[in-house]
Amino acid sequence: MPSKKIDIDRWLDKLKRIEEKVERLALLSHLSQILNSTLDHKEIRRRAMEAATQLMRAEVGSLLLVDEENQRLYFEVALGDREEEIKTIPLHFGEGIAGWVAQHGRPLIVNSPEKDRRFFKGVDERTEFKTRNVICVPVKTKKKIIGVLEAINKKGKKGFDKEDLSLLISLADQVAIALDNSRLYQELEEMFFQTTDSLADAIEQRDPYTGGHTQRVTLYSQAIAKYLRLKPSERKWLKITSVLHDVGKIGIEDYILRKPARLTTKEFDTIKHHSNIGAKIIEHIRQLKEIVPGVKYHHEQINGKGYPDGLKGKEIPLLAKIIAVADTYDAMTTDRPYRKAMQKKAAVEELKRCSGKQLDREVVKAFIRAHQNGEI
Amino acid sequence: MPSKKIDIDRWLDKLKRIEEKVERLALLSHLSQILNSTLDHKEIRRRAMEAATQLMRAEVGSLLLVDEENQRLYFEVALGDREEEIKTIPLHFGEGIAGWVAQHGRPLIVNSPEKDRRFFKGVDERTEFKTRNVICVPVKTKKKIIGVLEAINKKGKKGFDKEDLSLLISLADQVAIALDNSRLYQELEEMFFQTTDSLADAIEQRDPYTGGHTQRVTLYSQAIAKYLRLKPSERKWLKITSVLHDVGKIGIEDYILRKPARLTTKEFDTIKHHSNIGAKIIEHIRQLKEIVPGVKYHHEQINGKGYPDGLKGKEIPLLAKIIAVADTYDAMTTDRPYRKAMQKKAAVEELKRCSGKQLDREVVKAFIRAHQNGEI
Repeated sequence: MPSKKIDIDRWLDKLKRIEEKVERLALLSHLSQILNSTLDHKEIRRRAMEAATQLMRAEVGSLLLVDEENQRLYFEVALGDREEEIKTIPLHFGEGIAGWVAQHGRPLIVNSPEKDRRFFKGVDERTEFKTRNVICVPVKTKKKIIGVLEAINKKGKKGFDKEDLSLLISLADQVAIALDNSRLYQELEEMFFQTTDSLADAIEQRDPYTGGHTQRVTLYSQAIAKYLRLKPSERKWLKITSVLHDVGKIGIEDYILRKPARLTTKEFDTIKHHSNIGAKIIEHIRQLKEIVPGVKYHHEQINGKGYPDGLKGKEIPLLAKIIAVADTYDAMTTDRPYRKAMQKKAAVEELKRCSGKQLDREVVKAFIRAHQNGEI
Repeated sequence: MPSKKIDIDRWLDKLKRIEEKVERLALLSHLSQILNSTLDHKEIRRRAMEAATQLMRAEVGSLLLVDEENQRLYFEVALGDREEEIKTIPLHFGEGIAGWVAQHGRPLIVNSPEKDRRFFKGVDERTEFKTRNVICVPVKTKKKIIGVLEAINKKGKKGFDKEDLSLLISLADQVAIALDNSRLYQELEEMFFQTTDSLADAIEQRDPYTGGHTQRVTLYSQAIAKYLRLKPSERKWLKITSVLHDVGKIGIEDYILRKPARLTTKEFDTIKHHSNIGAKIIEHIRQLKEIVPGVKYHHEQINGKGYPDGLKGKEIPLLAKIIAVADTYDAMTTDRPYRKAMQKKAAVEELKRCSGKQLDREVVKAFIRAHQNGEI
């Protein structure tokens, strides 16, 4: 009964294919979990490329994001197993297969790229890569096409097929969602920093001699943080501390803040309240508890002669010691009504002189390295 | 050849089951897209319950979130087709099958609840619902169990099986990720509001007679927005406008802001600069462009006698007209050094008198309705 035999073979084949589909759908579900479990844009991009490579059983996966302003596609490539080699290549809009997909918003399989006029040889030439076949789908949010997800060179002898296409479209939808969530989060974060920075700046503007002080202290302390190898989360808290360190000046009267001459001892005693006032303002913000010590103690000195509490050495929190160095350097290198700004070189010498006395040794060291490398 | 026949039947059966699995995995992928395409916590919860119901082919799906502080599970139920009937029931920790799963972090199928000691009849009694079978899995983030996802009463005669369990575990993982992203977004949003509010408050504290003014204006304008049926996004912009409307006072000197008597015409002219100063501060914040008009024009009047630009009627942006009403009411109902606060009733009468002259009719109407309903 040969006919029977053929049926069984067909069924077995069908069963095999469908079991494979189950496997790939389970993989898709797993990959989409990995994609969505971060809000970091760069990390999502990396995971998207790897997911496309893995799901398509391809040699290479890539994600191109549309940059509307410059009418370009921002191109990133993950080279399969050699995943450390991620290259960034800018492409003009409409250029190549990816450009076609981005422009038309339609998916595409090209199993003979050499015969396809849309294929752009430039990338192969620049990456020393031989493209045998390509599968490419648009990455769309509700409103627009934000990019293109593609996989190149399917492993094995066959090219990409309809089933690959349906899976890659699903993955691209997940990528679009993950990128969109990340964008919303980053926009909110930027709004937070811009707003607090502008308000801190406005508070500071009452003192005409400190224009731009907050921004400079933020810049210097981030440079110090880099050389102290602080973790990303610590750098974020340091950034917020820098922005808000002088917020307590809101509580100091105009005539003292704006006095165009050296302050009397009594006036200086009043100014000293600003770190405590700042800490009190911040204390009311539940989410900013982490930065209270930095704001409160940014005028403490290693030798215990600082204010408000006269803390010594290790008693002073690290973020406060970083702000202290950045703050001191900025005070020395900007004009005051009663004296001119010091030269940068002289100010650095002065920091060295204060190292271990007023200022923390390690922090000054990090500052000097940042300065030597032209980052300050 | 009966043996051959049996084999074919078995294959056909296997094929059918595996085809069903493909269908359900594709559904899981679709549901996880829907879950992740919002950052709104409530909406994610609703979608999670619906997804559990649909994926499990059950009558009811529910999501219980762990409230660590009160040692309770916060219970929401989506009643299948009758999805409008979502009920909220608090459960004590450890109570019932869901409580067991939350405590042990292990999934559970109970196909004969009446025989299971963990089953808690209270919910059935309160919801007039007959539980035939239950499938229940923990919702875990990287660090902890944040809740429990369950489906009740599988449609058809069979109970829940291992395949259901594996699918529901995958769905619960997606739910955990979506809820975690939403939590991170909402925490950042709260940090933004708390910080700007505290800074605005600090700026305002220089004027001791306006303590709490920003918070009250925010409260009043949100109540007005409700009765004007503003969209959620408009309410959010209005909230930011309320918080920052007086930020320009940072540019007004102490002696005027703190003067314990009526201002002279010249001093009042200086005060009038605050709306322009505020707008200038906000203009520098790219993400807050939407609120510049509200801040700039919150002292304009319908009759054109306001400041800074003497705009009339429809020329004044809606958000500015809302802040104007909230601001006027708060000014009347708080003490000033040179006069006592007006009674609330008298202040409302005064708003009515100004309606259509200084203040917008529709906005005053909305204010009065909010006031009548005890929301102001």
